Amino acid sequence: MKKVVTMGEILLRLSTPGYERFTQAQSFDIVYGGAEANVAISLANWGINSCFVTELPDNPIGQSAINNLKKYGVNTEYIHRGGERVGIYFFEKGNSVRSSKVVYDRANSAITKVDVDDFDFDEIFKDADWFHISGITPALGENCIRLAKKAVEAAKAYKVPISIDLNYRKQLWGIEEFERVMPGLLEGVDICFGWLSSVEGKQSEYKVADFSNGELDEKRFKSIFGKMIQKFNIKYVVSTLRENFSASHNALSAIIYDGNELYRSKRYDFTIQDRVGGGDAFASGLIYGLVQGKSHKEALEFGVAASVLKHTIDGDANIVTENEVLELAAGNASGSVQR
Amino acid sequence: MKKVVTMGEILLRLSTPGYERFTQAQSFDIVYGGAEANVAISLANWGINSCFVTELPDNPIGQSAINNLKKYGVNTEYIHRGGERVGIYFFEKGNSVRSSKVVYDRANSAITKVDVDDFDFDEIFKDADWFHISGITPALGENCIRLAKKAVEAAKAYKVPISIDLNYRKQLWGIEEFERVMPGLLEGVDICFGWLSSVEGKQSEYKVADFSNGELDEKRFKSIFGKMIQKFNIKYVVSTLRENFSASHNALSAIIYDGNELYRSKRYDFTIQDRVGGGDAFASGLIYGLVQGKSHKEALEFGVAASVLKHTIDGDANIVTENEVLELAAGNASGSVQR
Amino acid sequence: MKKVVTMGEILLRLSTPGYERFTQAQSFDIVYGGAEANVAISLANWGINSCFVTELPDNPIGQSAINNLKKYGVNTEYIHRGGERVGIYFFEKGNSVRSSKVVYDRANSAITKVDVDDFDFDEIFKDADWFHISGITPALGENCIRLAKKAVEAAKAYKVPISIDLNYRKQLWGIEEFERVMPGLLEGVDICFGWLSSVEGKQSEYKVADFSNGELDEKRFKSIFGKMIQKFNIKYVVSTLRENFSASHNALSAIIYDGNELYRSKRYDFTIQDRVGGGDAFASGLIYGLVQGKSHKEALEFGVAASVLKHTIDGDANIVTENEVLELAAGNASGSVQR
Amino acid sequence: MKKVVTMGEILLRLSTPGYERFTQAQSFDIVYGGAEANVAISLANWGINSCFVTELPDNPIGQSAINNLKKYGVNTEYIHRGGERVGIYFFEKGNSVRSSKVVYDRANSAITKVDVDDFDFDEIFKDADWFHISGITPALGENCIRLAKKAVEAAKAYKVPISIDLNYRKQLWGIEEFERVMPGLLEGVDICFGWLSSVEGKQSEYKVADFSNGELDEKRFKSIFGKMIQKFNIKYVVSTLRENFSASHNALSAIIYDGNELYRSKRYDFTIQDRVGGGDAFASGLIYGLVQGKSHKEALEFGVAASVLKHTIDGDANIVTENEVLELAAGNASGSVQR
Amino acid sequence: MKKVVTMGEILLRLSTPGYERFTQAQSFDIVYGGAEANVAISLANWGINSCFVTELPDNPIGQSAINNLKKYGVNTEYIHRGGERVGIYFFEKGNSVRSSKVVYDRANSAITKVDVDDFDFDEIFKDADWFHISGITPALGENCIRLAKKAVEAAKAYKVPISIDLNYRKQLWGIEEFERVMPGLLEGVDICFGWLSSVEGKQSEYKVADFSNGELDEKRFKSIFGKMIQKFNIKYVVSTLRENFSASHNALSAIIYDGNELYRSKRYDFTIQDRVGGGDAFASGLIYGLVQGKSHKEALEFGVAASVLKHTIDGDANIVTENEVLELAAGNASGSVQR
Amino acid sequence: MKKVVTMGEILLRLSTPGYERFTQAQSFDIVYGGAEANVAISLANWGINSCFVTELPDNPIGQSAINNLKKYGVNTEYIHRGGERVGIYFFEKGNSVRSSKVVYDRANSAITKVDVDDFDFDEIFKDADWFHISGITPALGENCIRLAKKAVEAAKAYKVPISIDLNYRKQLWGIEEFERVMPGLLEGVDICFGWLSSVEGKQSEYKVADFSNGELDEKRFKSIFGKMIQKFNIKYVVSTLRENFSASHNALSAIIYDGNELYRSKRYDFTIQDRVGGGDAFASGLIYGLVQGKSHKEALEFGVAASVLKHTIDGDANIVTENEVLELAAGNASGSVQR
Repeated sequence: MKKVVTMGEILLRLSTPGYERFTQAQSFDIVYGGAEANVAISLANWGINSCFVTELPDNPIGQSAINNLKKYGVNTEYIHRGGERVGIYFFEKGNSVRSSKVVYDRANSAITKVDVDDFDFDEIFKDADWFHISGITPALGENCIRLAKKAVEAAKAYKVPISIDLNYRKQLWGIEEFERVMPGLLEGVDICFGWLSSVEGKQSEYKVADFSNGELDEKRFKSIFGKMIQKFNIKYVVSTLRENFSASHNALSAIIYDGNELYRSKRYDFTIQDRVGGGDAFASGLIYGLVQGKSHKEALEFGVAASVLKHTIDGDANIVTENEVLELAAGNASGSVQR
Repeated sequence: MKKVVTMGEILLRLSTPGYERFTQAQSFDIVYGGAEANVAISLANWGINSCFVTELPDNPIGQSAINNLKKYGVNTEYIHRGGERVGIYFFEKGNSVRSSKVVYDRANSAITKVDVDDFDFDEIFKDADWFHISGITPALGENCIRLAKKAVEAAKAYKVPISIDLNYRKQLWGIEEFERVMPGLLEGVDICFGWLSSVEGKQSEYKVADFSNGELDEKRFKSIFGKMIQKFNIKYVVSTLRENFSASHNALSAIIYDGNELYRSKRYDFTIQDRVGGGDAFASGLIYGLVQGKSHKEALEFGVAASVLKHTIDGDANIVTENEVLELAAGNASGSVQR
Repeated sequence: MKKVVTMGEILLRLSTPGYERFTQAQSFDIVYGGAEANVAISLANWGINSCFVTELPDNPIGQSAINNLKKYGVNTEYIHRGGERVGIYFFEKGNSVRSSKVVYDRANSAITKVDVDDFDFDEIFKDADWFHISGITPALGENCIRLAKKAVEAAKAYKVPISIDLNYRKQLWGIEEFERVMPGLLEGVDICFGWLSSVEGKQSEYKVADFSNGELDEKRFKSIFGKMIQKFNIKYVVSTLRENFSASHNALSAIIYDGNELYRSKRYDFTIQDRVGGGDAFASGLIYGLVQGKSHKEALEFGVAASVLKHTIDGDANIVTENEVLELAAGNASGSVQR
Repeated sequence: MKKVVTMGEILLRLSTPGYERFTQAQSFDIVYGGAEANVAISLANWGINSCFVTELPDNPIGQSAINNLKKYGVNTEYIHRGGERVGIYFFEKGNSVRSSKVVYDRANSAITKVDVDDFDFDEIFKDADWFHISGITPALGENCIRLAKKAVEAAKAYKVPISIDLNYRKQLWGIEEFERVMPGLLEGVDICFGWLSSVEGKQSEYKVADFSNGELDEKRFKSIFGKMIQKFNIKYVVSTLRENFSASHNALSAIIYDGNELYRSKRYDFTIQDRVGGGDAFASGLIYGLVQGKSHKEALEFGVAASVLKHTIDGDANIVTENEVLELAAGNASGSVQR
Repeated sequence: MKKVVTMGEILLRLSTPGYERFTQAQSFDIVYGGAEANVAISLANWGINSCFVTELPDNPIGQSAINNLKKYGVNTEYIHRGGERVGIYFFEKGNSVRSSKVVYDRANSAITKVDVDDFDFDEIFKDADWFHISGITPALGENCIRLAKKAVEAAKAYKVPISIDLNYRKQLWGIEEFERVMPGLLEGVDICFGWLSSVEGKQSEYKVADFSNGELDEKRFKSIFGKMIQKFNIKYVVSTLRENFSASHNALSAIIYDGNELYRSKRYDFTIQDRVGGGDAFASGLIYGLVQGKSHKEALEFGVAASVLKHTIDGDANIVTENEVLELAAGNASGSVQR
Repeated sequence: MKKVVTMGEILLRLSTPGYERFTQAQSFDIVYGGAEANVAISLANWGINSCFVTELPDNPIGQSAINNLKKYGVNTEYIHRGGERVGIYFFEKGNSVRSSKVVYDRANSAITKVDVDDFDFDEIFKDADWFHISGITPALGENCIRLAKKAVEAAKAYKVPISIDLNYRKQLWGIEEFERVMPGLLEGVDICFGWLSSVEGKQSEYKVADFSNGELDEKRFKSIFGKMIQKFNIKYVVSTLRENFSASHNALSAIIYDGNELYRSKRYDFTIQDRVGGGDAFASGLIYGLVQGKSHKEALEFGVAASVLKHTIDGDANIVTENEVLELAAGNASGSVQR
């Protein structure tokens, strides 16, 4: 049984029911999620010993967040209890031409008050097979930068493969700070999701991919990704290519570069139930594939199919079986009922 | 702060949940709406001192209708309490090839028993910047015809710009009565939404627009709209152009004619959450644009974008910010999440 | 008032709300359905004296199943009370690229313990105008095979026209047993929905129709259907032609063969709310058309339009009026609201 | 199988969920009820051929009312379709010191427009075993008074035993009109629920029973009930004795007088889930007992126990088995689970 | 129309549905409440020009809080928009022997960042008839202490009567700080709800009332309340007397002291739907009575009856009519339905 | 961390919402429970390494049952996947004089097909601190009797203390078979909940306790319990004493006998939210107390208080903290909110 460690914040997502606007809602649906927690649930779901590391307050809301992880089989033994509050974000799901809205209320959450010494990273990483973290964690302040750095160092010390999803969130920090902090984590990792604009000598507004018209400029991607690989000694640079037709309709594919060949996955065109966690589902699938010994191309295909399936499921987490992903990757998107 | 007055009936809409048929439902969702009330809420939402004039019974259902207007910031001080009942319509939302169904139970509602002298139109119009009414109000009987006439006259006396949405509803009155009554209200108004077939010398079944195949016969529209302008001394004649692909999928644009140039807005192709109130959202947007000093073309574009956004929202009312409308009008229909 | 008899199992369908996965759900929506029961409700809805024959336990769950049939006007006087349990199937509705999932828990249901002598088939068929049954009933074991046979014989004795929907379900029985049992029922029936692969001399995995690319191989269909007609002395062989674009998007048409001409209905392209019962709605419509004296082509068109409408309605049953079907068949799929 | 006919209005009750006040509610629960319809459902539930006579509009709301009756096994074949609307009442359930609130919106309902000649009372009564009606029906206007009179006369012509529940509702008519109309219906009936104050020579505000302190003034009751019996040639005069401790807590017993002995039932002290329909459940139970051949005392006990059970069930209708009533009447109110 | 000003924090209360525990809930019901906001809604409900002063962030959650106040008629024109977040508390409703649970997440809410100069207290108080505040506001930190002080001073300057509900909350501040800050606000107010233990020379754990066994030690209360009156020059000292039998069953009365006579209200024994806001409903009723010119004893009776009614209503706010309060105060707690 | 093993069936409980009757419900709430599973959740909740042993099918319903156990921290590693179905019981919650109803549909569930050799009892018991099982497990047929016997023997071999809750269910087996099978399990256990009537030489209908009038016949209990102790070499015989006033109102206490002293716990009088699992909560509390080293009297008090708290919580499981139990046991049943 492979052991994968993820670390980050788990948030209480409060979603208006159906497609209600904030001012219409009389209740909020409860979802617990977060970039790395979503990855942890996907992996647990596929049979991985999926260990999630975080700080949560010792109150019933913190306990509910943990119970939700347990429900989906995530190993919660490394979670430390402390701090005052679970971070919250309010979510209003869009449809058609109306986009989804997020209102963050995550300042001063438990993880922002974290004490790095409360975690025993030797214990955590000594028998681990992978470590995953996203750029959202260091965006949460100095304590979290320290936490991320120490974890990455410990993982490297135990020769655990590492993946980092850059996941730039402009509501959390500025592009300058992002470009200043992330290089310190990227050195020698196995996978980087996305890239830094600073590798091209500028420090502009970060974009996941210059991909406005569905056409792929292979040369340009190879150039940027190649610079990432050289500068940070990364094994693979990866990105999803999302085409936003509307809040209810997207197309998705992904690319992976190993410094030599730029491989592009199949492209899926699909309607959307809930797109939150789509990127995390992709990361989960790619990591799962590699941990299970698939080739990086097979793993990429698994990741993209997993991500597309996520868009059909409400909530942050991707509750799908390996078999469902494989069937979709093999081309069965017909939706016919088996009976 | 601009003051816009709207007047009409507010109905209790009882909608089956989701896409349930009437005979399946165990509960009804409560929505309070009506052509002019929907306009009033849109305008209040954009910061207008939006005053709604109506008659509502002095019982908890009438109070709930008022509270709902207040919630969205509508000024309810000119509402008179009287009559026995709030008009009701039962609503079953269609999808795909199944159309929505309306069952009216609005006879003998409070506004049909209205006494014109219960309203102080001098107070109401003396500092108003716009007055809007629809053809539904005079369709509710003699008392309502009197009410509409007196209000229009008072508005004219105070030189308040007026817009009238013809809004012919064949379940409420015959085409002959419609064509007989409406001319008395149209003289000298600023905007007429739709047109009367009688301007062409016939008095046939009224149609919003001869627009079956998406192609616009500009000459024909100019001819009819021109006759409306000449006959009634109207400033602008306006119409939406709706393409009904299915109950879940429409396209929408609109035209405005100033006697000289026929301007057509952008065309939007979109999926639908709830199409009730789409026309009222359009009227609101156009009125808002003009009251705020935009050109009639800009106002039309604002109106169409507002209307399209309405189709993504459950309920009659268009709960969107000015910014959301402007973004859509500027071309951002991608539905990507800002975070 | 025409009397149509249907016979089969009615199941308790427990559906997760909305698009929740099984492991997410906190409640199940209750639907009572089953191939023949769905047909019975459709027919009752259109004014037929629709008699449903089955075995249900004498407990509150059995009573609730009966009450649901009564609610939609089905004649339940021939239902016998006995057995221990109502068969159950758990249902998770898919969307987009994710297919719906069915978990059967129907073993040992009341109908599998049925005693054929508890039903007075003389009483049931003496004044009947049609009898319909599906291949699901004999799939439920020896008692049900006996039940089906005795009913078919009794219907024939009273010269009641018979339709059989082959409805092969591989989770219930093997293809060999299916091909062994069904011929005993097909002799001399008026309509067979689908066909047996054994008429071509092989006994392979059964397929409703070889119809992968939307193109119709008329010759091939004529050949197979012709063999069915000859071998079993059937009047019409019928099949729907379903194109599965996704769980949310299908196209549907149907073909009917009278031994001479292969007639194909109109083709509808539509989005889906709930596709369970789509085939039963088709069968209902075709039977209704024939019982009411329409031509077999008109009846087929009625059946296809009825089936398409079913896809817009949650639950197994097709709660639509004759008028709604006729309007859709006449080409009105625009979904515009009548008011 | 005994046939009992009931006649009256069936209303759409729109209840706020749980204990929400009108101004808090976002939805209404749908209940179809009415004094006589509630009796009809109770009787159908106990295996009676329970025929309900009314007028309902030919629209989906009227159909839903009928479907609800069918669901509980009521025979709806004598219902005539016509009129414009189903009468409505809005209902807010109270608890503790807060009383329930009713807002009527029942004017101009279908039954108030009834044409007496649309009903074939010979067909209805020729094989009937009982007829029941309440004072609410004649309170609905001249058409309904005519309807009630004709039905009572027809029942008498066929020697069908009759029961009348006086059910005075001051929101529907004045006490004078009540006391003027009801005597014309009471002559020779078998059971009268309640009494007229005019039998004592005055015509004051009607009260169900002078029963403020739980003590029964037998002499007084015998005197009034005796006058009813003499004046109108009634067999039994009956009344419930309700003690209102709060909206959540009542006690209930009942008395029956045969002109000789005043018999009082057991007294039950209980908490309340929904008290609407409590009186109708009592009437149902008494009628059922008599129709089934019980003594009037046994029938009274059955009626009171049925009524008490009704208070534990949401909605107007008393969905309880005969066995449950008998068990409670026999003294088992312990609420222990059988398993 | 009387104008009453209240000032304080409005919180987003997130309640588990029904009686679910935190770890069971899949959604939260949304309630907006807070000690003074609850008072504001009660007063608006009774026809007062009820102005609520607070700070709320300029985001959709802040807007929803305002819309909720508007819905119930509260005047929101003095609310300033600023700060980052709406304070939250999670609420789990208890029943029987299980108490309700509150988890606060209100640190760093908008009002704690308030800038006193953003409010124009001259405008606010120049035509006011009453000002009410509670001890919760100064408990929220230095900015709020400044806000409370400035408001109280401005009210005094305009000779506006003032009431202060001490409302000690030990989760917000220590008893020492409470006893240090509150005296600065109490000088010369008209009503103080509760008392300070420091008036007796000690500074111990604060208790609303020493009232464990239902017996009132009049002498003791007179002594403490008299000291409050003397020390702070207060007109009336008031307290509720609550008897907690269980989370579902309480008794309530109240006392008022004018320095001369200790008057005790009627005592009510009742079951509970939601006890949050019970104290605020009491304060509202007392203030309303005095503002409307009732005697202090009548006002106290009105306040207690209002508070008892509140316990029957879900949510923080007391949505009852003046008439309902008067009826209960007059002794009608029978819960019988008027129809 | 103490390890407690429980073994039995986990059922899918399908409950009608609120107090709906079966024939009213449109949905079922999902609860996973069972006598021993309820004990397992309680213990996990209090920090025990609580291991639940059962057989569950390898389908999404089986997975959902496991996920629910995981959510509350139960160790599911010893659960074997196999069999066809999860046992079901339908549940209708009673109130007041109406009792709750249970409809079992548990025949042929996975555990009834269990193969004893699929469980490694050495692994399970080698480091266990307690083993608990109920009489429901052997009631499920020969496979389950074998399972129970083997588990009890293995536990004894590892000297693990054992408790057995006799839990006779007459819907599952006859009293003769019960009295025949259970003695084979009881020899030498630490706790027996309840007793066998055969110890008195008769074999009559089993009763939990002869306790009709609230009075305890100490002598009689000592005699029976003493015979149990002597015959089976049991350490403690225990029983709850439940007084059923109604489905909403009970009183509860318990007795424990060590062969010497009959100790009776405090008695609690309380209203009920959901009484299912009340006995299991009692067993959990007593076991927890003993495992944690409390005296048997303290443990009994803990068990009774835990059981009373359970009655305030919806669902089978007792989601309460140790602290909440201790507070109630210490006498705080006032339900006041801590804030």
